[in-house]
Parts: sequence; structure tokens; C-alpha cells
Amino acid sequence: MIQLHEIPTRAPKGLEKEDIKRKTDRLTRRIGELQHIMYAEKKQNFLVVFQGMDASGKDGATRKVFSYCNPTGILAYPFRKPTEEEFAHDFLWRISKRAPAKGMIQVFIRSHYEDVLIQRVHKWIDEEKVADRIKAINVWENHIQQDNNTTILKFYMHISPERQKEKLQERIDDPRKHWKHNDADWKEAERWGEYMFCYEDAINRSEVPWIIAPVDQRWYRDYYIAEKVMSAMESLNMKLPTFDTMKRKE
Amino acid sequence: MIQLHEIPTRAPKGLEKEDIKRKTDRLTRRIGELQHIMYAEKKQNFLVVFQGMDASGKDGATRKVFSYCNPTGILAYPFRKPTEEEFAHDFLWRISKRAPAKGMIQVFIRSHYEDVLIQRVHKWIDEEKVADRIKAINVWENHIQQDNNTTILKFYMHISPERQKEKLQERIDDPRKHWKHNDADWKEAERWGEYMFCYEDAINRSEVPWIIAPVDQRWYRDYYIAEKVMSAMESLNMKLPTFDTMKRKE
Repeated sequence: MIQLHEIPTRAPKGLEKEDIKRKTDRLTRRIGELQHIMYAEKKQNFLVVFQGMDASGKDGATRKVFSYCNPTGILAYPFRKPTEEEFAHDFLWRISKRAPAKGMIQVFIRSHYEDVLIQRVHKWIDEEKVADRIKAINVWENHIQQDNNTTILKFYMHISPERQKEKLQERIDDPRKHWKHNDADWKEAERWGEYMFCYEDAINRSEVPWIIAPVDQRWYRDYYIAEKVMSAMESLNMKLPTFDTMKRKE
Repeated sequence: MIQLHEIPTRAPKGLEKEDIKRKTDRLTRRIGELQHIMYAEKKQNFLVVFQGMDASGKDGATRKVFSYCNPTGILAYPFRKPTEEEFAHDFLWRISKRAPAKGMIQVFIRSHYEDVLIQRVHKWIDEEKVADRIKAINVWENHIQQDNNTTILKFYMHISPERQKEKLQERIDDPRKHWKHNDADWKEAERWGEYMFCYEDAINRSEVPWIIAPVDQRWYRDYYIAEKVMSAMESLNMKLPTFDTMKRKE
């Protein structure tokens, strides 16, 4: 059982920022190489979910971790408030359309989990519906893993409430960040406790395990996530297809 | 009137490769910054078309030119042989679905031009149909420029037939490139003259002007294209929205 308040949101003591940044650069370069192999091989595919409170760095992590990737092989999609058409369907309708194809990395910025988080916090759905949806999420995630060889990495962007306030405030103080500011984010932040309850519950009832990423410091966040993504890709032992291996398959 | 055989496929004499590479890096970094502004502003959008013979470097250019872009703001789509569903529709059906949204860069690797190139070379369509399609392309391109503020940059990847043969041969000789090899590419290459006729004709009958990119040398190709993309983005005078400018709009 994961209890979020027991897990640090910051880097362990004693790490050297510059050293970590160099390591992150090596990791992200390697992710780019592995992506190339995955795209050529067209057997494996990745679903990377970034889920977390506002200003927890979902966009920043997407940009940094996949910076050496070829745009042809990666799709990053920010889920927003469902459209009228999306609302008219089951909550997985818009999600399953965006499952990764073989050879591809698909990044979800927010995800199907919104439907058991914001909707639950605001009591737009009752607890029975929450339970049904969590079950449906587990079924769907298992399904794409089994049927399409998908590797799912779900990151909970673990930010402290103090750090979130600082970052929301930056969006007011720094004109270069004004465009990110949204009054509604401050209102949601007031429900911190309810969100943590719902996050913890969703994480603990998930069959595909979540990775809790400490994101208070950008440099450690990027390193932490890049290391998990790189290791997961490396462990698949992907190989560029050659005439030899292509023939063997036939 | 453009005549392709009069236009060089190589860099002008006297350029220093290392110097050009440094410039390309600066250009692509700037493209990344401008993409960020475009994404925040959500007024402008870009359609970048890479069209050219096999092995002319469409994928490589995509990767290099947009290497500092955030995956959230760019979509690169390689058009392949139309699916059965796509064939059952007009040729622009699958194209217009992928027009860029405000704030986005959309890269077409191959494009709607396939339908007046490979289809014409093989005489799968008659000359009347070709004329109709070229007209339809002009209408559609003008339409998205006018109606959605799209900037269209169409690159013809100008490779020499000798260089193409070398690059196709590399896909046989170098096991790391085996996965790109396709016997059919060699067959298409035999129709070089017919392709050049159809390319020239399509280029000369296009209302949105084409950019003829010399692509025999990768380092010059990347520089040439990055410079065009950067200048086009720069000229739009995009600005990060601030509270001031956002209020003025309301």
C-alpha cells in the first residue's frame, strides 16, 4: 500500500545537480537510440502516462525525457476537458483511440485517470461508478499489454503542496508563464487532501503498478523519469531487423 | 518555371561543413523556442511537407530540423499506401483530417502529392484526373491558409539519381539499414525521368510555392531546411501571451 505523504517529493541528499544533469543527457540520448530501434522493429510499443496535480511538470518532463526522439515515432497528447462528443461516450472511448501502435511511443499528459480523480473529488460520479471505472481501467490496460505488446509506464508526478503553490505563483509573476495561468488551478489546489485520497486509492487499486516520481526539483524529476523509461526500453532487448532476422520470421 | 535538372543537388562550393553544422544547431534551437511561443499563442500553425524520391532524406530531415521541439506541439505523419478505407474516399479525405491545429506543427512525410506523382507515373489515373487533383490541392492549400492561418512550407527533396542509388545500396550493405530496404524502391527508381516530369509539373502548377532543397549532403540538407523553417516562423512575429495582451483581446 502506497501512502503518498511517506514518499519524498525531493531528491535524496548528497546528489550533485550537475552530475545528475549529465546522466540525464546520457539517458535521454539512449532513449532516442532505443526509440529508433523500436520504430524499425515494430514489435514493441510504449504508453507513458504523466498524471499529477497542476504545475507538477507533466509538460516539462515530456519535453526533456523524449528530447532525442524522432517526432515520427512519438505522439504526446494532452487530455483536456472532454468535448461534447467525448462526453457522449464511455470514458475510455477517447482513450483507446489513442493507444500506441506498434513501434510507437505514446505519451498521455493527463489520462483516463482524470475520470476517477477530478470527477470523484467533485462528486460528479458516485462511488459505485468509481469502482466500475477502476475495474475498467485495469481491464483495458491489461488488454493492450496482452494484445498489442504494450509496455505501460504510469508516472504519478509527486509534488509537495508548497512547491505547487510556488509554481502556480510563478505563472502570475513571470510574464513568460502568464499563458499557463488558470484561476481554476488555484481552486483545485484547495482540495489537496481530497485529491491525495483519490490518487492514493487509484494507485493502490491499479494492477499495472505506478511509479511515484519526486518532481519538486526539475533536474531530479527529469533524471528519475528518464532512468525508468530507459531501463524499461532497454529490458525489452529490441534489435534492428536485418535481412537474416527478417527471413527467419517468414 | 522551375526545371529541376538546372538546380544543384549539392551545397555551394566553399562552405565549411563544421561551420554549417554549428549554424544548423543554432537554427534548430531557435525553432524549438519559436515552437514554444506558437504553442502558447495558439494563433499560427505550420504545415511542413517533405516530398521526394525514396532515400531523399525525408525522415532524417524531420528528425534533425525539429530536434528541439516539444513532442506535444508537433505531429509527424508518414503517409503510406492508402488503406482500403482511404481508397474508398476522395484523395484529400485522409489529408484534411491531418491539417495542423492552431499552435501546432504538422509534418507530412510524403503527402497529398503522391496522388499526382506515383499514381500519374503508373498511369493509374488519366491526365484529366491529374488536372482536377492539382486544382483541388491548390484550393485546399489556399483554404487552410485563409481559414486557419496555416503557413505551408513544401520541400521538394532534390537528390541526384547517383546519390539515390548510393543510399539505396547502403540499405543493402549496412545491416543497421536493412529494415529500410524495399525492392520496390529500386523499381520506382528506374522511372526517374517520368518522376521528374511529374514532379516538375506538379511544382510548376502549384500556387503555394515549393522550396527546392539540395539534399545530396545531409549536413547541407539540414541547414538549408532549418533555415527556411526558422525564417518562416520568425517572420510571423509571434509573442508569448501575457495578462496584458490577453485582456486586450477580450
